[in-house]
Parts: sequence; C-alpha cells; structure tokens
Amino acid sequence: MAKIIECVPNFSEGIDKKKIEAIVDGVRKTEGVKLLDYSSDKDHNRSVVTFVGSPEGVLEAAFNLTKIASETIDMTLHHGEHPRMGAVDVIPFIPVSEVTMEECIEIANRLGERIGRELSIPVYLYEEAAKCEGRRNLADVRRGQYEGFFEKIKKEEWKPDFGPCVMNVKSGAVAVGARVPLVAFNVNLGTNNIDIANNIAKKVRFIGGGLRCVKAMGVKLQDRDIVQVSMNLVNYEKTAVYRAFEMVKMEAKRYGVPVVGSEVIGLTPMKALIDCAEYYLQIENFSMDQILENRISE
Amino acid sequence: MAKIIECVPNFSEGIDKKKIEAIVDGVRKTEGVKLLDYSSDKDHNRSVVTFVGSPEGVLEAAFNLTKIASETIDMTLHHGEHPRMGAVDVIPFIPVSEVTMEECIEIANRLGERIGRELSIPVYLYEEAAKCEGRRNLADVRRGQYEGFFEKIKKEEWKPDFGPCVMNVKSGAVAVGARVPLVAFNVNLGTNNIDIANNIAKKVRFIGGGLRCVKAMGVKLQDRDIVQVSMNLVNYEKTAVYRAFEMVKMEAKRYGVPVVGSEVIGLTPMKALIDCAEYYLQIENFSMDQILENRISE
Repeated sequence: MAKIIECVPNFSEGIDKKKIEAIVDGVRKTEGVKLLDYSSDKDHNRSVVTFVGSPEGVLEAAFNLTKIASETIDMTLHHGEHPRMGAVDVIPFIPVSEVTMEECIEIANRLGERIGRELSIPVYLYEEAAKCEGRRNLADVRRGQYEGFFEKIKKEEWKPDFGPCVMNVKSGAVAVGARVPLVAFNVNLGTNNIDIANNIAKKVRFIGGGLRCVKAMGVKLQDRDIVQVSMNLVNYEKTAVYRAFEMVKMEAKRYGVPVVGSEVIGLTPMKALIDCAEYYLQIENFSMDQILENRISE
Repeated sequence: MAKIIECVPNFSEGIDKKKIEAIVDGVRKTEGVKLLDYSSDKDHNRSVVTFVGSPEGVLEAAFNLTKIASETIDMTLHHGEHPRMGAVDVIPFIPVSEVTMEECIEIANRLGERIGRELSIPVYLYEEAAKCEGRRNLADVRRGQYEGFFEKIKKEEWKPDFGPCVMNVKSGAVAVGARVPLVAFNVNLGTNNIDIANNIAKKVRFIGGGLRCVKAMGVKLQDRDIVQVSMNLVNYEKTAVYRAFEMVKMEAKRYGVPVVGSEVIGLTPMKALIDCAEYYLQIENFSMDQILENRISE
C-alpha cells in the first residue's frame, strides 16, 4: 500500500458557487491527489474540502487551494456564523496509510513555511504540529477571530510560526496542523427537550469531566422534533465510538429518555466501526488483517 | 475498482509439505491472481487455499491448481477425518468487488467444462452454480464420499455436470460452485459442558428451526476448558453476524451460562462487521461510501 495522507481544509466561502469551484479546482488540478468530497454551508459561509494523496501531492494541492482562496476571498467582506481567522481558515493533515504522524507534522511545517513566504499570510501550527502546548487546541489559536487578530498577532506569545508578524488584511491568518482522523457521531434522543441533550453533552465531553477525546453539544432536529447529542470524537483509538455511545445511553437513563438512533456524519476510518463490532460481539484477538478487503489491498 | 473474484479451493493433502507447496504453486505462478492464505490440517489431511484475482485470472489459477493436484494426489491412498470426494474436493468462486454472482457462476461453468475435458475428472456444480435444487447443498453432493462415488455416479440423478460419467480412480470427483462469502464465527461459553454447546447449536442453526443461513455445532476447547458454538454464517447479508451472536446469548440464558468471548476465523468481508457496528450503535442511513478506505480505493 502506498503512503496516503488525508487533508481537510476549511475555507471562508460557502455561498458563491463560482468562487467555491475555482478554489476546489486548486485540488482537482493537482497531480497525485484525489478529491473525495466538498460541501458548503450558507449560514456558516464556509466550505470543507476532503482530499487524499501522496505526501508531496497533498502539500502541493493544499498550497494551490490556499493560493487561489487568497486571491478569491476578501476577509474584510466576510460574514458567517462559524468562527474563522482567515480566507483559508484551517488545514489539517491526517495520516491514513503507511504514514506516521511525524510525516504529517513535517508536511504541515513545509506547507506553513511556503504559505508564509510566498503568500505573506501568517501561519499558526496547531494540534500535533503545535510548537507549544498553548497552540495545540484550535479554539485557543482561533480565539478573537479574524477581527481580533490584528491586535492578537502583536503579542509576543502569538507571534506566527511562519510568515509576517502582521495580519494579511485580505486573507487573514491560517492554522495548519496534523491530527488523527476524527469521527463526527451524533446520538438521537427520544425527546424534544434540548436541555436534556445539553446536559448529557456536558457530562460526556472532556471539559465536563467526561471522556478524554469527546467534544459534544446538544442540537435540536427541528424537522423530526427530537434532540441529539452531537459529538466530535477527536481520537477514536483512545476514546472509541462505542464508549461515547454507551455513555450517552447511560446518562440518558437518568431522564428516562431512550436513544432512538445515531448518525455518522461524512467519512469515518474503517477501524472506528470495526472496533465497535469487536466490542459488542466480544471478539477475541481480532486483527485488521482478517478483513478481506485489507488483505486484497495489501 | 477492478473486478475481483475470490476462490477458496480445498484439496486432499494436509501432511506432505512438498506436495502441498507444489499444488499451491499452481496459484502462485499464475498471472493476475494474489495468494492470500493457505493452511493445512493433518487430522483432516486437507488444505484450504484462498486467493483473489480477475475473473480470467482465478479461472486459470484454479485450473492450474487442479491439474497439479490431480498429478500429485492419489485418492486410493487418502485417509482423513474430513468428508471428501476428490483430490481437489471443492472449488467455490465468491464475488468480492464489481462482480455479480452470475459472473462467478459463469466462471464455475467454464472451469468445470475444462476440468472435465482436459483432466477427465467428473464435475458437479453446487450452491449458486447448481443446475438443480438437489445439487445446491455441498453436503448432499458429497454424500458417500470418494469411496461411495463409484456407485453413486452411475445413478441418472448423479450424472456429472461436466466430464466423464465414471469416476477418475486417482483424482475422484470435484464440486465447483459459486457462493457468497461465508464468515466462520465461534462463540465461547463460560462452561465446559459440551451438551450445552450442542443444544445451543441445534437451536441456532437452520435445520433445528433456527436462523436460515447458520450452520452450527458444539466444540470443546480442551486447553481453555470451555466449550464453544462453532458457526458458519453462509450468507451474512441475510443472516447477520450480530443476529447469530444474540441468538446464541439468548439460548445460553436458559442454562445461566454467560458468553465469554467470540472469534472470527480467517478472513471476513468488511461489511459483515460494519453491519454489526451499525446495529449496536443504532446508526441511521449509513452507507459503505462513508468508509474512508472505500472512498480512497474507489
């Protein structure tokens, strides 16, 4: 199997189809990468692109996308509900096959250096690529957003890792990082009481004393008149999907509320779900080599 | 993704390493196929080979293996615990990717015709490739075994589908077929009472009024001093792994016996386990396209 890295850049345009296509073309037209998915949200005025490829391929595609976005998007005119600090807001690299986290961190560094030098955009390395603990969490890096960064960037502790030490007025700043794949997993409850979903979310998530690699919030599903606990499982190898699921069920019991379903949003690594089958079926000594498709692609 | 068929021939030599390697070489030396696994059992005096490839590749490899086995194995001297009717006993073709069952049936027919014509071995088509209902079940086709086939083959209803209407004394007869992938799945019980495992097996399996696509028997695990319900799930899309597992648990309850674990033997299609994760996590509207690895290999 070849070296494959996944890259999931988020950029600050979710309305103008022509601009969105022009930016995604930066990936499409790069050799050695494969565009898997892209989707835009009008309320967030933001798009998410997913592509995979060789280390050199994803580096080149991510740069091309950033270059086009920096020419196409004007952050002085941008409005949207989702927090953001730049035209391309965040670029994570994720190891998929035959690649270590260290190699993803190296690609993040090389991309950051190039964006800083060629595009004059300040770059912050985050998550596994962070140079210090205070820049590990994306929310900490992004706090203050585009508007607040003109002041924030002047502080010594927020000196960019690459690029100029002043904001790029048109393009803002960008966070480049490396992380394990995350799984977006929502659990639907048999109630329309949003307080219950919020209370369960607080108990299950890390900051509320819950599971280490879980971020969670309550969400209302208007059309179905139910609520859900919407989670990001930021490391399914440490905090497995089944553990988050069972903990939501456990907390829901106090309200006599049943779990009526769940959903996996977007893509998930195979192993995140195979781990759940292993748990519930109590399989002993299972190896991913026993998956027929894995053996074929070896 | 390319057209891929899996082929799992069983041949009647499980002791002589030199002969086994010579026969497996029939697969190794064929272009367009990939040997995934082979294992031999001395008590059964029998080997199982697993390989995948293009339709033309698996046809060629299966013929090469059969030809070498027919030259290497002398059935007049064969003894072993497992029922068998020939030097190569059974050759199933299994659709894996971008291939229909009909294409596997066609390959089974072409292989059968060639084995009959070039090697003068009587051929019976079974399972999905069977020409009549009475030949669908391998156990029915093989009943009487090698020794009994000299008489059985003379009966009008057991006229071979291809090849001569008399037994090949050295090589016996062969069953060639097409089927969905099977999952070998064993559930371990917290008891050493083999009667309990046998009773549960009888309730769970098709012939005992249980699940349609389950074959099951009780087995003693001497070294762990426990028993298990050993199952072949012959169609995991119809009878899912979780359903067989939950039914074993349910029947075990009458004896107050806990399920202490389970095992998947050999290879399993990814979907057989993903279906279980979907069930236990109550995932709504999941698509196999959401598996990252599937999207990459598309």
